Amino acid sequence: MTSSFSKTPVEFAAWDILTRGYDVDETLPVWIDCDPGHDDAFALVLALHHPRLRVLGVSTVDGNAPLRCTTRNALRMLAACGVRDVKVYAGASAPLLRYSTETVVLTDGMDGGDALRDENGMEVGEALRRRRRHPARIHGDGGMDLLGMDSPWPSEDYGARCLGEQPAVEAMAHIIAVEYARLNAPAAHGGARATDTSGCRNHVMQAVFGDAGDAAVPPSVSSPRKVKIVACGPLTNIALLLSVYEHLVPMVDVVVLGGALVAPGNVTPLAEFNVHHDPEAFALVIHAGIQHVVLVPLEVTHTVVADERIVQRWADLHSIFGDVVAALVRFYNERYRKTYGMAAACLHDPVAVAAVFGIALGKYRVSHECVRVETMPRTMCRGKVVVVDRWRGVTPNVYVAHAVDTEWFWAELMGAVQRADAVSPLNIGRMEKVECDIGVGRDEESR
Amino acid sequence: MTSSFSKTPVEFAAWDILTRGYDVDETLPVWIDCDPGHDDAFALVLALHHPRLRVLGVSTVDGNAPLRCTTRNALRMLAACGVRDVKVYAGASAPLLRYSTETVVLTDGMDGGDALRDENGMEVGEALRRRRRHPARIHGDGGMDLLGMDSPWPSEDYGARCLGEQPAVEAMAHIIAVEYARLNAPAAHGGARATDTSGCRNHVMQAVFGDAGDAAVPPSVSSPRKVKIVACGPLTNIALLLSVYEHLVPMVDVVVLGGALVAPGNVTPLAEFNVHHDPEAFALVIHAGIQHVVLVPLEVTHTVVADERIVQRWADLHSIFGDVVAALVRFYNERYRKTYGMAAACLHDPVAVAAVFGIALGKYRVSHECVRVETMPRTMCRGKVVVVDRWRGVTPNVYVAHAVDTEWFWAELMGAVQRADAVSPLNIGRMEKVECDIGVGRDEESR
Amino acid sequence: MTSSFSKTPVEFAAWDILTRGYDVDETLPVWIDCDPGHDDAFALVLALHHPRLRVLGVSTVDGNAPLRCTTRNALRMLAACGVRDVKVYAGASAPLLRYSTETVVLTDGMDGGDALRDENGMEVGEALRRRRRHPARIHGDGGMDLLGMDSPWPSEDYGARCLGEQPAVEAMAHIIAVEYARLNAPAAHGGARATDTSGCRNHVMQAVFGDAGDAAVPPSVSSPRKVKIVACGPLTNIALLLSVYEHLVPMVDVVVLGGALVAPGNVTPLAEFNVHHDPEAFALVIHAGIQHVVLVPLEVTHTVVADERIVQRWADLHSIFGDVVAALVRFYNERYRKTYGMAAACLHDPVAVAAVFGIALGKYRVSHECVRVETMPRTMCRGKVVVVDRWRGVTPNVYVAHAVDTEWFWAELMGAVQRADAVSPLNIGRMEKVECDIGVGRDEESR
Amino acid sequence: MTSSFSKTPVEFAAWDILTRGYDVDETLPVWIDCDPGHDDAFALVLALHHPRLRVLGVSTVDGNAPLRCTTRNALRMLAACGVRDVKVYAGASAPLLRYSTETVVLTDGMDGGDALRDENGMEVGEALRRRRRHPARIHGDGGMDLLGMDSPWPSEDYGARCLGEQPAVEAMAHIIAVEYARLNAPAAHGGARATDTSGCRNHVMQAVFGDAGDAAVPPSVSSPRKVKIVACGPLTNIALLLSVYEHLVPMVDVVVLGGALVAPGNVTPLAEFNVHHDPEAFALVIHAGIQHVVLVPLEVTHTVVADERIVQRWADLHSIFGDVVAALVRFYNERYRKTYGMAAACLHDPVAVAAVFGIALGKYRVSHECVRVETMPRTMCRGKVVVVDRWRGVTPNVYVAHAVDTEWFWAELMGAVQRADAVSPLNIGRMEKVECDIGVGRDEESR
Repeated sequence: MTSSFSKTPVEFAAWDILTRGYDVDETLPVWIDCDPGHDDAFALVLALHHPRLRVLGVSTVDGNAPLRCTTRNALRMLAACGVRDVKVYAGASAPLLRYSTETVVLTDGMDGGDALRDENGMEVGEALRRRRRHPARIHGDGGMDLLGMDSPWPSEDYGARCLGEQPAVEAMAHIIAVEYARLNAPAAHGGARATDTSGCRNHVMQAVFGDAGDAAVPPSVSSPRKVKIVACGPLTNIALLLSVYEHLVPMVDVVVLGGALVAPGNVTPLAEFNVHHDPEAFALVIHAGIQHVVLVPLEVTHTVVADERIVQRWADLHSIFGDVVAALVRFYNERYRKTYGMAAACLHDPVAVAAVFGIALGKYRVSHECVRVETMPRTMCRGKVVVVDRWRGVTPNVYVAHAVDTEWFWAELMGAVQRADAVSPLNIGRMEKVECDIGVGRDEESR
Repeated sequence: MTSSFSKTPVEFAAWDILTRGYDVDETLPVWIDCDPGHDDAFALVLALHHPRLRVLGVSTVDGNAPLRCTTRNALRMLAACGVRDVKVYAGASAPLLRYSTETVVLTDGMDGGDALRDENGMEVGEALRRRRRHPARIHGDGGMDLLGMDSPWPSEDYGARCLGEQPAVEAMAHIIAVEYARLNAPAAHGGARATDTSGCRNHVMQAVFGDAGDAAVPPSVSSPRKVKIVACGPLTNIALLLSVYEHLVPMVDVVVLGGALVAPGNVTPLAEFNVHHDPEAFALVIHAGIQHVVLVPLEVTHTVVADERIVQRWADLHSIFGDVVAALVRFYNERYRKTYGMAAACLHDPVAVAAVFGIALGKYRVSHECVRVETMPRTMCRGKVVVVDRWRGVTPNVYVAHAVDTEWFWAELMGAVQRADAVSPLNIGRMEKVECDIGVGRDEESR
Repeated sequence: MTSSFSKTPVEFAAWDILTRGYDVDETLPVWIDCDPGHDDAFALVLALHHPRLRVLGVSTVDGNAPLRCTTRNALRMLAACGVRDVKVYAGASAPLLRYSTETVVLTDGMDGGDALRDENGMEVGEALRRRRRHPARIHGDGGMDLLGMDSPWPSEDYGARCLGEQPAVEAMAHIIAVEYARLNAPAAHGGARATDTSGCRNHVMQAVFGDAGDAAVPPSVSSPRKVKIVACGPLTNIALLLSVYEHLVPMVDVVVLGGALVAPGNVTPLAEFNVHHDPEAFALVIHAGIQHVVLVPLEVTHTVVADERIVQRWADLHSIFGDVVAALVRFYNERYRKTYGMAAACLHDPVAVAAVFGIALGKYRVSHECVRVETMPRTMCRGKVVVVDRWRGVTPNVYVAHAVDTEWFWAELMGAVQRADAVSPLNIGRMEKVECDIGVGRDEESR
Repeated sequence: MTSSFSKTPVEFAAWDILTRGYDVDETLPVWIDCDPGHDDAFALVLALHHPRLRVLGVSTVDGNAPLRCTTRNALRMLAACGVRDVKVYAGASAPLLRYSTETVVLTDGMDGGDALRDENGMEVGEALRRRRRHPARIHGDGGMDLLGMDSPWPSEDYGARCLGEQPAVEAMAHIIAVEYARLNAPAAHGGARATDTSGCRNHVMQAVFGDAGDAAVPPSVSSPRKVKIVACGPLTNIALLLSVYEHLVPMVDVVVLGGALVAPGNVTPLAEFNVHHDPEAFALVIHAGIQHVVLVPLEVTHTVVADERIVQRWADLHSIFGDVVAALVRFYNERYRKTYGMAAACLHDPVAVAAVFGIALGKYRVSHECVRVETMPRTMCRGKVVVVDRWRGVTPNVYVAHAVDTEWFWAELMGAVQRADAVSPLNIGRMEKVECDIGVGRDEESR
């Protein structure tokens, strides 16, 4: 094992936060929560085609585009990657405080008596009211638009057979609980007898009749092999999960892509999009008592720039799948140039996925910090993530990444893209692929 | 059918809001969400023993006391009422924004650098930090304390066999969806084939691939026979339910006990406890698009005063169960006297339960209003419920009760208490009852 | 002395709050702060022509119309009333927090990056941004528009000779300090030697070198004969006065027209205009430590309805001045009908002026209360005035009026209008009057 | 003229912002607003004894210590510096929103009904409530405490003869207006005929009767030779000045010591003390329309560290005055070590004073930016100063300093200390000095 960074003692202590309890060559079980989103698309490719990761499921959330679009996009990427055995579950269609001014963008006219009218006295249509919540100027109206390529998707509902029936939060709870029980079952008994609700039952009985002082904060430290949740979008789903299924708190580690510590924000002067979109959810996650919350902020992902050299390597695959990933980044890059004046875009989300196995390899610089977020509605600083100075005597609650080995990262991502390309049904040819896809779908449902 | 109030045309339009689609003598399916709480205890008695109501389940929430206590209290009341076939599900252990200053009561010391210390520089223990969130001065430390009577509960875990294993929100979703499907199934097919997830599947497919403009607001009007949720506590569980299971919105009507419109609040000068405890949840519920949200505010319940004449009638039952309900109200009355200087306490919660069948009988004066709530954290007006003047051209979203026929109410409640008394295991004698209870418990679990 | 209300002991204690130290037939020195405004016009007429009042000066403030308009309107009313020896001083041109979103109405685009653009992406002109701050739909664009009458003002700058040179706050401070010194000087020495800065010097020396524990709260009780400030508009000027000239706190009593206690607000569902326009200023005034702050809220002024019977009496004066006051109220009434659906408008401001002498006559019902105001920006309840329940053990800080003897009020106002009519230069005939006015102006300036 | 920094074109444009209209060797008229405060003491020494500066007056404000202390401290420093012809005027005794929770530190108990009690139920004394507003742990209880030296002040009221009678804001307005009129008067007429109120009269007439679209924003650009206000403390006085005397806006430039742009704050994790103490005042100043507002933030002053090498040079003066300035810094350094763990303290305030003449010398790196401040009460980010990214299309309003030539700065400050030392009455010997001082005081008062 070679490390890209020399570690200070403090940082060294964090090296195994996401791999503790697992063997070096054991796959790590991950749940991907996302809102594709161009960079989310690459997070899915990396998670689904990296040898160290085993994806338990994918959930979608309102964020880069409306839930309808982010769910479609996730389904498309799964299908394009040739994945059959992973489901996509549609999650929250709006941030936690879905009624609030921030969420519906315009005030409801209470101040001054002109309800449902904008400042010019015009009636505010629903479309207008929701327009600015989704950053179409970065990701396009569909959330995952392409540049220089006609739509490669065989049908409007391409990938629909992977759509799960349950609400995302319920599916996450049950699948994670079963996996956690299996992972941590005594070898003698096997995981077979563990059920998805046993953790809940024990938790409830303990909470109501046990003598724990405060059952709301379960002992998260005692269970070594945790399921990894990677949150590539706003944290709405995770916050709802931890609110409804409190007994999951000790079962999971969470990697969060988001926050701007000292860098300017990409939505407001101080706030990064994922946190700003649902700061209450972010606050809930970092204060929930989860043992390892890892934050990968803009300071890190701003070093992962998808310049033309990178894009060309994907285009050089000379396949439809290769063309798709190249067209994704080219669209994304153009929007970054127009909006922020940056030379190329940053592939934020896969950097969070790679942290699951990369931190133990020494590819990330990480420290344990006391992190807070400004949640006050209607303020300029809403969504600002703050690392509190140590001299204030505060208690750390979040592991913050400060740097990533970018060469290593691009190599890992390139490998995943190549593996996906090798099995992508998109490369079979459009007509054949549709038939194949339908065939598989029938197969799937007839089981 | 006799009406207690002469109706204006506007009010008349509201007469069938909670009974629409049901026959006059058909039982109405209700879910009770509560935080017992002295008045919640009577809400349970009324719901469980009224001939017009059929209780699908009971959920508990952090409110009048910690979740641990409110759940125990609910279990005790179910057992004391002789109920076997209804489960109690433990819900949210804290308000929606559980990390916030309001929820943990004290600031986290960010301002000035003294984290986890109070203004005097003392370390703030968890017990102290949470003390004021629960109104022990009204309901006692246990949330349902008695006056002039030793503990009547045979064991610490009295009623435990009714404790459900699932989290409350998940249980509500599944039980309500099944009931709704059964109630609204075409007669030919019967409700048998409907499953609890079919509503969700249809909703997700429609949301992702359908051509609805905005799937987040489902067409709630089209389905006539809805399940009634009565919320006797803070609305945390209901808000989580509607966030995770959006497809439930058109399946339910919600009756909310809470809010002070022009009367002074009972927590702050302007706010009533249930709303103030979780204003974000209240806002979410009234803005969710539910067809009939009925608000029973303090102005109504302040006319339902449990004076000594009432208490004596229960004491006159000359049974242990009668003694318990009398001791409950006597404790409650004494605290109201001490705290507010009122002659006796108001039995708030059962007034919301009785509205389910009472509005159609003309026993409530109701109008359709535009209701808002102040949710801004750390303000004097947080939790203030506002009825917006009609001249502002606003759209009504909540049915507000303005009065109740108190004579009628007391008669209905007395009937329920008598029916509960008739079957209460408490009345069998303490020793026998414990055995009986254990026996039943074994029975139950061996099925 | 006859009283309109039978007094409770508590209320009786308040009877002399505004006349303490003065003889029964002594004139009371008042400063009028206003933002004419139709009802402000009548406040000026009443103050300038009531035998019990002696007007020290008039200040204007941004409120019902921009400062430019309210100042012009005040000058016009003074001139129309035939007043020569009272100056009008222009005060604050915006609320205390003049930079805030509330004050400039629209957000500054920080949230989302579209600075200086509205929600539709349009550039926001200054005119538009400020439009809604002034209630033109109630008072017209000029703030004091007339109905059914051509402009009666001889020139654009009619009344200009009464315009003071100093900023309002400085003028108030000096004139009030001199008057206070004169009123409270030992008879032997006379008031002649007291200067307007002597109070300040003593205050500063005491604050810096004295041994008072906290010089910010001066001993306001010890000085019996106070100057009365009547605030008919937002409290910006008064708040600035008390901030810059702290030594004035013990020299004044303040009567405030504003607030809605349980009645709906006239700007937002909960807030009255004067308080809502500058809640920070209102808060500063009620917490400044002034001995007698009297609040005359909407509940009181809503009983003072200027119906056609009243208007006709003024029209029956058969003079230009009489026509002007009738045309003022007719415009005002029409706007109230259109906006609020009320039969006629309320003459709010003169009810505050009449309180200066009317409370001692028993014409007002008054109690001493603990009053707070919601100042949190960008909230639905901003500007809500709250009377805190006594059982909370709070300390009273404001005298709240609950009722006024309306017959008595109309009689007093009618008397003042008649006296003003008798001397109004408007009645001399337009041509003559202009000459006369110019002549006086020259006279004035040549002194 | 040598420059310490090579200038970019943007920065070059800013080189004459504070000296425009003045000859190279002409003294610059400055007003010092301060809250001594150890670093304020040095700001006074530098301003009073630098050949390029001519101090018009000094005002004090609540900040590093209560007004009582900051005023005493300012008087002491003036006297110690041998200054006779400059007055100290006591200003605001509390921030602009003096009633607010932030200002009185503890909540007023509205939430929960325990008015005037802290979270533990203890009565909150005034002393306790105000304790944390003043950073005694940095500046000591007196605001300007010494280390290793007995009190050097001959009497408790040392310097009292320099105390002005007027409120600071009024004095600033009149003295600045006279100076501005003198500086900008046509040579032919001389400044003699200009009076302090002429500017105000013209402004009021223009505002009320002129045809300016919006008189609240006066044409500040047209007048070249402006008076310089250096704000070393919270901006309360300046905000009140610009609110009451709007006509002063075009007469002044303002240098503000304060704000943390990306560095951690010294009060909260994000906010610097001066801004955090009164963010509303800061907002008012930067949005008032002043032509040149220069901000000197913590990023700059953190490079001006008063290490032992510096202190020793002052101690080496071998005079009482030298001992005093050394003892001041030694106290300050010890507190910085204890509180922040820094090696030595930063002399913030004199860096703002030196900017008045130093920017034109190229000793500061300055750029023109769009600056905002978070003013929302009760938020974690309150007082956070934000420089908004240029790509958002915003309009610059503040000149931000990014660096200072520290060697140059220390040389300028050393020169001023030496000049002060040469004339300091402290060095005459304690007994003699007191007599001398009293003598002078008598002299002064007998004039």
